[in-house]
Amino acid sequence: MDFQNIFPVWNKLNTHQKNRILGSLITRKVKKGTLIHNGNMNCTGLLLVKSGQLRAYILSDKGREITIYRLFDMDMCLFSASCMLRSIQFEITIEAEKDTELWIIPAEIYKSIMEESAPVANYTNELMATRFSDVMWLMEQIMWKSLDKRVAAFLLEEASIEGTNKLRITHETIANHLGSHREVITRMLRYFQSEEMIRLSRGTIHILDVKKLERLQNA
Amino acid sequence: MDFQNIFPVWNKLNTHQKNRILGSLITRKVKKGTLIHNGNMNCTGLLLVKSGQLRAYILSDKGREITIYRLFDMDMCLFSASCMLRSIQFEITIEAEKDTELWIIPAEIYKSIMEESAPVANYTNELMATRFSDVMWLMEQIMWKSLDKRVAAFLLEEASIEGTNKLRITHETIANHLGSHREVITRMLRYFQSEEMIRLSRGTIHILDVKKLERLQNA
Repeated sequence: MDFQNIFPVWNKLNTHQKNRILGSLITRKVKKGTLIHNGNMNCTGLLLVKSGQLRAYILSDKGREITIYRLFDMDMCLFSASCMLRSIQFEITIEAEKDTELWIIPAEIYKSIMEESAPVANYTNELMATRFSDVMWLMEQIMWKSLDKRVAAFLLEEASIEGTNKLRITHETIANHLGSHREVITRMLRYFQSEEMIRLSRGTIHILDVKKLERLQNA
Repeated sequence: MDFQNIFPVWNKLNTHQKNRILGSLITRKVKKGTLIHNGNMNCTGLLLVKSGQLRAYILSDKGREITIYRLFDMDMCLFSASCMLRSIQFEITIEAEKDTELWIIPAEIYKSIMEESAPVANYTNELMATRFSDVMWLMEQIMWKSLDKRVAAFLLEEASIEGTNKLRITHETIANHLGSHREVITRMLRYFQSEEMIRLSRGTIHILDVKKLERLQNA
């Protein structure tokens, strides 16, 4: 799997632009849990996920977290190069949720190509629009959906990503995804257990009744 | 005040592109309260505010609202032309908060110029990044700030926009800006009154103590 086959507008680049990208491209392998980018780091560059899983989240002054979006194989991360766009006034933290292999295009290389290439600029536009849609979806969830529905949706999404109904995940982690507190999540999960939707054991949440969780999510 | 002087990348357009925009440009005057765009309408086009004030908000199934951002003189509204970007998967409603004069560039004209012009595509990028920053700011407010701070911030912002400490605004309207309920806002405003930060009278909120509201906002 080569970079050229994954980068969506590769064929719209001229030879000079292609050479500049290939000449500066960095390949990196990171372990699960590695912090890849945050507001204090230098501009990391554009990330293209070869394999693995990344999580983008925001952080409050008091250390609370909420997941904004996740990136999977062949996804591109724009906000690790947010220095490229002067109008971006927020900070996103990106960490590896699984062992991940990625390509990094240095921000200044991408920026100079974007400035001269309409296809690259329009691709960047679509990328930002995709993340914008993720954030608007999340905003609607937070504003109009109660926490029980959001926890149900989160468990179903995790089961789908991991391909199993036995989730190895802590209550603290779920709280950090949803911008909530561990105690609140624990109480909610115990309620789900009393309704026989899940079974809790040490470090594991076993989904027993997908249909019931789906009904709750969509109620 | 001409369109050419306000449109930021006018000088980066070629003669053909300039003529296509000028030949298709629509001027429109709308009264306060006019609904300019929503998800059910055809793609309205890019709006450039000549004078006046627009509000962009999202709406829940149950008719609750929350203001996403506002547009003032010379601001450009991208999401009234969201059909241009296929990755935009959300619906924003735009209404005139004051009598407003605007220019409309039809979406298909703007899109075709954006596809061939790197400066226009990059300008669009910056525009989207600005709105994205607005939404991320709002998300942080909703997630980490309590409602008293958000109401204080809203009153101070209104006073600044209107240039007066006597705000003619209903509790319902404030609730719709903040994604809250009228009853909750009324209770909060009564608390502010008891703390001598504001005085309430029919249809009016009189800000008495800006400093105290600012302290609350920043607490």
